[in-house]
Amino acid sequence: MLLERFTVPPAEQVRVSAAALHRTTAAIFEKLGVPAEDAALAADVLVTADLRGVESHGVSNMLRVYVQQYRDGTLNPRPQWRLLREAPATATLDGDGGLGIILGPKAMRLAMAKARQVGVGVVTMVNSGHLGAIGYHAMLAAQEEMIGVCMSATRPSVVPTFAAEPRFGTNPLAIAAPARHEAPVLFDAATSAIAGNKVRLAARVGSLLLPGWVADKAGRPIMTESPPLERGQYFHLPLGSTRELGSHKGYGLALMVEILSALLAGALPGMLEPGYKHYFAAYDIAAFTDVERFKDTMDAMLRTLRTTPPAPGQTRVLYPGPWPNTKKKRGGAPTAFPCTVK
Amino acid sequence: MLLERFTVPPAEQVRVSAAALHRTTAAIFEKLGVPAEDAALAADVLVTADLRGVESHGVSNMLRVYVQQYRDGTLNPRPQWRLLREAPATATLDGDGGLGIILGPKAMRLAMAKARQVGVGVVTMVNSGHLGAIGYHAMLAAQEEMIGVCMSATRPSVVPTFAAEPRFGTNPLAIAAPARHEAPVLFDAATSAIAGNKVRLAARVGSLLLPGWVADKAGRPIMTESPPLERGQYFHLPLGSTRELGSHKGYGLALMVEILSALLAGALPGMLEPGYKHYFAAYDIAAFTDVERFKDTMDAMLRTLRTTPPAPGQTRVLYPGPWPNTKKKRGGAPTAFPCTVK
Repeated sequence: MLLERFTVPPAEQVRVSAAALHRTTAAIFEKLGVPAEDAALAADVLVTADLRGVESHGVSNMLRVYVQQYRDGTLNPRPQWRLLREAPATATLDGDGGLGIILGPKAMRLAMAKARQVGVGVVTMVNSGHLGAIGYHAMLAAQEEMIGVCMSATRPSVVPTFAAEPRFGTNPLAIAAPARHEAPVLFDAATSAIAGNKVRLAARVGSLLLPGWVADKAGRPIMTESPPLERGQYFHLPLGSTRELGSHKGYGLALMVEILSALLAGALPGMLEPGYKHYFAAYDIAAFTDVERFKDTMDAMLRTLRTTPPAPGQTRVLYPGPWPNTKKKRGGAPTAFPCTVK
Repeated sequence: MLLERFTVPPAEQVRVSAAALHRTTAAIFEKLGVPAEDAALAADVLVTADLRGVESHGVSNMLRVYVQQYRDGTLNPRPQWRLLREAPATATLDGDGGLGIILGPKAMRLAMAKARQVGVGVVTMVNSGHLGAIGYHAMLAAQEEMIGVCMSATRPSVVPTFAAEPRFGTNPLAIAAPARHEAPVLFDAATSAIAGNKVRLAARVGSLLLPGWVADKAGRPIMTESPPLERGQYFHLPLGSTRELGSHKGYGLALMVEILSALLAGALPGMLEPGYKHYFAAYDIAAFTDVERFKDTMDAMLRTLRTTPPAPGQTRVLYPGPWPNTKKKRGGAPTAFPCTVK
């Protein structure tokens, strides 16, 4: 659930049907030279983000960026990925300049195929574009009785603890796991205090930034409520905000994502070379334990979480998820689902 | 580096040689019926924690707990672990009631053997005791040109965002990766705002707790500096402390650790059944990329991090690590290494 300060005021909202948005988005990708099947996949990734209420990674916020990158030649509309190295449980891929939101689902399916063979599959990828809302890729595994994990090392904007210059991207991490009757778990979060474009989003809707969200240009955490700074006038803080609150943990998590996504793919980290690097892992639950037991246990845990007594002033406890297809859609219009805590 | 408020005042410090501490500790384990080789391993895990400055998980803080658990029959001094399920890349183990700090290194070595065969190895474990400073196990992989990851689902003490009752343990997560000339990376952190026994440690050394570290018994984050509360009068907060600062991310990370450690081992989560559950993963770097290139890139990244200009008022940027054996020991006495940011 987005904090209220990030929601677009009702008067400015433009509501369209998900199906129409999907058609239009796919047509735009095709126009840019993307094959029809890939264009439909890209549209699905973007519209799903909107349907989950993650508008920062949906059509309105990301499509224009991708269009620009296809136009200026940054992205290759017809990539042929290349296998750089492979083992029964692993693969390292060169994405041939393709867009991450199209290559991501394919890389996760490769990880899943490996997991089906040997229990776990891990795929890393260099030389591809933005991965979108990475929970989409993790969720593909959860739809086939696996646990999916996805990470992405992105452009440096986050200052390590005590540092005056950014060294890591917002480096998100996602995990998805299936349940039986409960909505599946889908956790997808930046390892920074707030996601990359929340500052611009706050500026757009006229909100203040809360203490601990960003640092000034010298790397000092800003610990008072303050107006959004202009681009280039601030850096992001790691999750934990300050050393005292635990920013060294957010910093360590960003470092973990960088090692598993960039270095394990044989690439340089974002602080030394531009470009996105990605990590996909699938765990075949049946290789570890009984799948039916796993799903029942997930249900029991998730039910326990959402029926936990709330603290004073709170209405209820949420858990991260769910997925549009697992709940009845409200008339097909883009809407935030109640359990999304991103 | 521990925050100053957690360090034992110099007048109260008792300094002993690491070798003597190791001998005494191993002898105590043997006295409890633990085989000599396992006793030496347990002593190594505990003394290494002290040598890294992680006193919360060293001899003085943990040994008495383990002794009590062997004495009351909670722990089995001569466990025979049982393979519950296995695939080329995976294994699920029943630890037969053995102590985690002894079974942990063995489970990680099993994961490493699998990684050597198929590229990645993942082992989960139920029915065993406390895993100690889990970075120890992750580091075993880093010592053999692999990346090691370790997690542990522990006794509930952490309130999810908005909740009035604890549902997760401090559920730590560790990753270790080798470098060439730079000290290796070892990140090892609780997914809670502060580690489990920091409150008692603060009480012991007479320090106040900082805002955002714990919640009161109703689940409300305590956002003022305040004296440590008595056991049972507070709960831990997830990393991120409050919804506004990002506690939903710390909560999501704790949930991730619970799914990968407990549920993937076929066990119930800590909120429904007591007992520790563990996760061990090893990534064979050579299966993904050139090992020499990986180490050179690690060096370049780590050098860049530690030479990053510091923010005003800070002296330098640290990265998480290193390991006692990789630096010259100061006379063999227990000492905190400067780069430890835990």
